[in-house]
Amino acid sequence: MRGAILYAPGDVRVETRDDPKIEKPADAVIRVVAACVCGSDLWPYRGIEAVAGPTPMGHEYVGIVEEVGADVSQIQPGQFVVGSFFASDNTCDICKAGYQSSCVHREYAGAGGAQADLLRVPLADGTLVATAERPDEDLIPSLLAASDVLGTGWFGAVAADVQPGKTVAVVGDGAVGLLAVLAAKQLGAERIIAMSRHADRQQLALDYGATDIVTERGDDGVTRIKDLTGGLGAHSVIEAVGTQESMMQAIRSTRPGGHVGYVGVAHGIQLPGEELFYSHVHLHGGPAPVRRFLPELVDLITNRTIDPGKVFDLTLPLGQAADGYRAMDERRAIKALLRP
Amino acid sequence: MRGAILYAPGDVRVETRDDPKIEKPADAVIRVVAACVCGSDLWPYRGIEAVAGPTPMGHEYVGIVEEVGADVSQIQPGQFVVGSFFASDNTCDICKAGYQSSCVHREYAGAGGAQADLLRVPLADGTLVATAERPDEDLIPSLLAASDVLGTGWFGAVAADVQPGKTVAVVGDGAVGLLAVLAAKQLGAERIIAMSRHADRQQLALDYGATDIVTERGDDGVTRIKDLTGGLGAHSVIEAVGTQESMMQAIRSTRPGGHVGYVGVAHGIQLPGEELFYSHVHLHGGPAPVRRFLPELVDLITNRTIDPGKVFDLTLPLGQAADGYRAMDERRAIKALLRP
Repeated sequence: MRGAILYAPGDVRVETRDDPKIEKPADAVIRVVAACVCGSDLWPYRGIEAVAGPTPMGHEYVGIVEEVGADVSQIQPGQFVVGSFFASDNTCDICKAGYQSSCVHREYAGAGGAQADLLRVPLADGTLVATAERPDEDLIPSLLAASDVLGTGWFGAVAADVQPGKTVAVVGDGAVGLLAVLAAKQLGAERIIAMSRHADRQQLALDYGATDIVTERGDDGVTRIKDLTGGLGAHSVIEAVGTQESMMQAIRSTRPGGHVGYVGVAHGIQLPGEELFYSHVHLHGGPAPVRRFLPELVDLITNRTIDPGKVFDLTLPLGQAADGYRAMDERRAIKALLRP
Repeated sequence: MRGAILYAPGDVRVETRDDPKIEKPADAVIRVVAACVCGSDLWPYRGIEAVAGPTPMGHEYVGIVEEVGADVSQIQPGQFVVGSFFASDNTCDICKAGYQSSCVHREYAGAGGAQADLLRVPLADGTLVATAERPDEDLIPSLLAASDVLGTGWFGAVAADVQPGKTVAVVGDGAVGLLAVLAAKQLGAERIIAMSRHADRQQLALDYGATDIVTERGDDGVTRIKDLTGGLGAHSVIEAVGTQESMMQAIRSTRPGGHVGYVGVAHGIQLPGEELFYSHVHLHGGPAPVRRFLPELVDLITNRTIDPGKVFDLTLPLGQAADGYRAMDERRAIKALLRP
């Protein structure tokens, strides 16, 4: 089969590799129907995260089950499935509490690389969600989005305690931030302030339900949010970047008693305890437990209530994966979909 | 009147001062029945916080209303009242959401110094809660505790989302930590792990409902909590110290998806963002909005359901306030009550 390998910063190649096989009785092997490039893939691509030798890439996927191990009972060959980037047993106390991405048996589902023809998925019963039937072709991008960026934006909104009638601000206009806007809308937010300085992303935010656009960043952005909320700050702020500036912007944009949901991977951030203490905000986030939301998200997509697939503004054959990385790195594309 | 003044680290004197007067129409002046020394008073007493000239001390109080301003309608002269350390209007959006200690009109109620014969309390209607009648003498310590330490421990438990049937750990065995144990018990926790290495405090924790005592600190303490919770950590952890070590101990003792409620004033703390991200905990805390809880706490005390006043293990006349500071500084007393 073919699969994308990152050799060094900026150096992604699609190569012929061994087909994955069932290694453990809880595994499934799926034929990938669509995969994509994640914002987090850009960390090693840009050399910000170290690359420890050639690394199979990709952790977002939809596909058709080819084969399952002896212990798999819920998932069958031939089913169309959506999975999460963390494999989970979905039965331990942590999973039952809705934190499958911290499952006591957690494994990284992208270890084999989802930007490929085939992928081995551990703990298939607890990780994959099958659709009732083979979905229409035009739903593929949205179902793929559910695998990570939609699930992550949704978790951001849930972690930020988005409630009907409330005011929500979203820091970050990448695919996760845009889908956090969609999630906030679905969860009933009355006012959704998207922070973006790119016209195409602003438009998509408005399409997804944003009511206000703020182009300022940092303390200026905070001032604008305060101006828009009677001086108090938003009830809920979703942080979808992962930098020191964006985290502080999110915390300072939230009213006392409000909630920050942070889903940008917090690289090298230090949060000042005393400021956090007096801010009176709730802080929650982390790697999204996508599996918690997948059944509901798959339903919302297949009944065409939501259309998260619009974040994919570039579709390429798997063989051109390197072009997808380049387009996202240069911010020419919001998110690149790859078709094997 | 007499009042306690901090002149410099270690130098508290009770002196004759001008009687406070009504300064604004929302003020009340109360005759203090009991006040006390707070753990946070020890920060400047120990020289860890700067002392900017002679400072009236004390922010915890119960008393009899002497006089009210023209705009005060809910509180009347002659009533026995309990107040919070932050004065609040109790009508703004932040107060209505239950965050009176971040009220948009917040004032520090201890500005005049509650360790005194008389105290001016701003925003009396939104700050003070009157009892139905003059309480029995033996209830005075418990009602005084409601003014800060009980309200703060209670907020810690609420911020840590203590729920019936759950496992709670409490970091810190000062008065706030001990009353957080009491709060966790009242809120229905099944298992309450108190972290303490002092026999007298351990005993009070057990009296208040602790089921387990852990004497280890730091990473060893975390390991013990994990051992006691099937390797997962507690559902809820209340942090009642305010140091880097105690905050990290609290975060690391909490299971993924669990809640940290932190009420120790976070001095000089930096929280590592990436560790917090992967910890999957909820983090909430800050200066306790005591006013939110006061009506309920006053009821629980006056109907003798709870006895938080047991944290006062030293009672002194106001004139001996300096002895109270010394005893708490040297950890000979958990908490010193002062009677004018």
